Amino acid sequence: MARPAPLSGFPEWLPEGRTVETHVLDVLTSTFELYGYAGIETRAVEPLESLLSKGETSKEVYLLRRLQADPDEAAAASDQLGLHFDLTVPFARYVAEHAGRLTFPFKRYQVQKVWRGERPQDGRFREFTQADIDVVAPDALPAHYEVEVPVVMAAAFERLRAVGVPPVRISVNNRRVAQGFYEGLGIADVDGTLRVIDKLDKIGADGVLRALQEEVGADERQARACLELASISGSDASVADAVTALGVRTPLLEQGLEELVRLLESAHAQVPGVVVADLKIARGLDYYTGSVYETTLLGHESLGSICSGGRYDSLVSDGSHTYPGVGMSVGVSRLVSRLLREDLVRASRSVPTAVLVAVVDEGTRAASDAIAARLRARGIPTEVAPTAAKFGKQIRHADRRGIPYVWFPGEDGDGEVKDIRSGDQAPADADTWQPPAQDLRPQVLPTG
Amino acid sequence: MARPAPLSGFPEWLPEGRTVETHVLDVLTSTFELYGYAGIETRAVEPLESLLSKGETSKEVYLLRRLQADPDEAAAASDQLGLHFDLTVPFARYVAEHAGRLTFPFKRYQVQKVWRGERPQDGRFREFTQADIDVVAPDALPAHYEVEVPVVMAAAFERLRAVGVPPVRISVNNRRVAQGFYEGLGIADVDGTLRVIDKLDKIGADGVLRALQEEVGADERQARACLELASISGSDASVADAVTALGVRTPLLEQGLEELVRLLESAHAQVPGVVVADLKIARGLDYYTGSVYETTLLGHESLGSICSGGRYDSLVSDGSHTYPGVGMSVGVSRLVSRLLREDLVRASRSVPTAVLVAVVDEGTRAASDAIAARLRARGIPTEVAPTAAKFGKQIRHADRRGIPYVWFPGEDGDGEVKDIRSGDQAPADADTWQPPAQDLRPQVLPTG
Repeated sequence: MARPAPLSGFPEWLPEGRTVETHVLDVLTSTFELYGYAGIETRAVEPLESLLSKGETSKEVYLLRRLQADPDEAAAASDQLGLHFDLTVPFARYVAEHAGRLTFPFKRYQVQKVWRGERPQDGRFREFTQADIDVVAPDALPAHYEVEVPVVMAAAFERLRAVGVPPVRISVNNRRVAQGFYEGLGIADVDGTLRVIDKLDKIGADGVLRALQEEVGADERQARACLELASISGSDASVADAVTALGVRTPLLEQGLEELVRLLESAHAQVPGVVVADLKIARGLDYYTGSVYETTLLGHESLGSICSGGRYDSLVSDGSHTYPGVGMSVGVSRLVSRLLREDLVRASRSVPTAVLVAVVDEGTRAASDAIAARLRARGIPTEVAPTAAKFGKQIRHADRRGIPYVWFPGEDGDGEVKDIRSGDQAPADADTWQPPAQDLRPQVLPTG
Repeated sequence: MARPAPLSGFPEWLPEGRTVETHVLDVLTSTFELYGYAGIETRAVEPLESLLSKGETSKEVYLLRRLQADPDEAAAASDQLGLHFDLTVPFARYVAEHAGRLTFPFKRYQVQKVWRGERPQDGRFREFTQADIDVVAPDALPAHYEVEVPVVMAAAFERLRAVGVPPVRISVNNRRVAQGFYEGLGIADVDGTLRVIDKLDKIGADGVLRALQEEVGADERQARACLELASISGSDASVADAVTALGVRTPLLEQGLEELVRLLESAHAQVPGVVVADLKIARGLDYYTGSVYETTLLGHESLGSICSGGRYDSLVSDGSHTYPGVGMSVGVSRLVSRLLREDLVRASRSVPTAVLVAVVDEGTRAASDAIAARLRARGIPTEVAPTAAKFGKQIRHADRRGIPYVWFPGEDGDGEVKDIRSGDQAPADADTWQPPAQDLRPQVLPTG
């Protein structure tokens, strides 16, 4: 076959890039576990009708068809399966299906591929990896989980800074604030208003004023008040004062502001400086009912949100209970593709190998294998050279992969080990020699 | 929505089951890394024509179609995408596509879902996880990698025995032995003969004799000789003697026997007692050219092979080079579903959490959060109780999840920590208290 061409929208990394991605995922999942989130996976497919009932992206679903399907099988649209386009809809189904065998509040994380049949563009893929956390509980979910979820994400991103990931800002809002405010203004179409406000960065203030009047039926006073609300931001209780100063008061608005301030204060105590209120944050999905979140990589605002989510009340139901929940989702592929393309983060080598054991001649390969086995028995990733080439060529083999050590077997005894970066070489015992900790595994480091 | 029903052939695990699966994958991948294999992932889709050109399962491919596809887009069959049905075909494409940016010999591992539109049955799924290793090199691949690959798998399964996974036997054969022998007998249809021999366990010796005569055109003497070859097994050079005693000699057969004996002897030196020759192993895939492997979980032979593969010479080509290779693939879902269904392996708890910090009343939740933060800062997975219920109820919350410790915040100082298994309770400092190592993370253990 000739060299295959890449498929647009289906990213793949070279081994170095995958090492960076794996490290990002390790930091995320180990942080999730520190907060007690249990890992699960769901199947990649859901019935089409389940996918179509939730979320704005459902129109971009990939449908599945068996190549050998019977004609009538293909026709039965009610049985059609599609690939999931996020991890929230399958999680809701998983909870409803397995509720009797789960313990609640159920805190889970999930790292999987998702698929969307979108036109590929910068930072938007047709196949990408998400890392989600959610908490759900039957009938009632304590509000403190609306604090915990962004705190967990802030803690994870804080740990990622050590490898060169830029700092983040998590912008929060509360649907109750917007809804209470719009209703207090006398606007009937709350969802329509949110959809217009969501476009503020795209169409500008004048565009929003016009759209609110033309599409939602607001008068100019109402439209201007909505725009003023959307312009409010801050990191403490002053946000509530600024809203109150706009002169609208409803019980729902009060409740939303109280929750928003509690979120800001509690998050500030746990992860200072990361979480800020930004009342123009709307989130496109109509199932959110309380806190909503978006996350910006500072200095890379054009990338859009890399970690979003919110509180939902009626997404999950098994017929006898509803399970309100709150969650956030990291766009891992979007983040990692930026880290790699802008060369912000690098892996110290392209292979796990710390030691290459040289082969003197093919007749003594077993002796090299035995040295490698003794190193591996102590957890040191080790390869044996592919051929008994000249030592210079074997050293180049290590050097091209970033393998730091080459072990030369001796005629009697174990031989000598060479640090090919410094050139230092010394006799060594394969049962006791240990590389420095930072050489044991590939390091993921800031490029700068 | 009402409670959703499971989809046949698309397995999902509860959190305890996923903990077992994650542990199995950690053991596999950390073993692969000890031998220098680098992790990659490939996209889930390949062009249909690429899927159809390789392997026997291609007829069970799932095709993708965008729900919003243009009619002419759907018609262009040459652009059709399908979900990969194994990890070998996408790996071959990955190597061909990225060859200029890889270093060779290229040793990679890959853990991903694959999909097959088969009728679901015991141990056969429509979606399942595979864990593959392969080594490829341009133009020529040293034969010692045909030893290394099963040795790596044997080492991984050996480590899995500690958690209750039964021991395995890796059965090996060499295509050159079969081909050389059949050609020496004067049989022209080597592939057809292999396909019949592959059914020996299913249709029996008489069935094979008949099929070889009726379908492959062998005479009775040839058919009996093929059956005699297939009955040979053993773990050392006596296997070659038994083949030679059948009276057929060709250079290809000699080469195959020599490779087979070298594999047995070298594997025995590295992982004694696991690798045996079984000359009825044929493997269905026609791209294998040298060693072939199958792996049986002892005591669970009915499950079929849980780790198979072989040597191939012309699977990978980028137009200017071919890349011969050798690999094996663990059927992770098949293995894990058996471990869970037969209750061979269990997780010590359903959550990562080692400590539940109790909440005295909602007004002092921040104090509980602060204790949790100090424990997490030292790597101890910690949750804070969901509500300020009576302590008995908070302890039951921990008990139901298998969380071993409950921390009771004190009015002055940090309070006390209780091991809820023993009932022991003592004052503790959140900056220094440490659980025993075996309590820090969920343990995966033999059930017996």
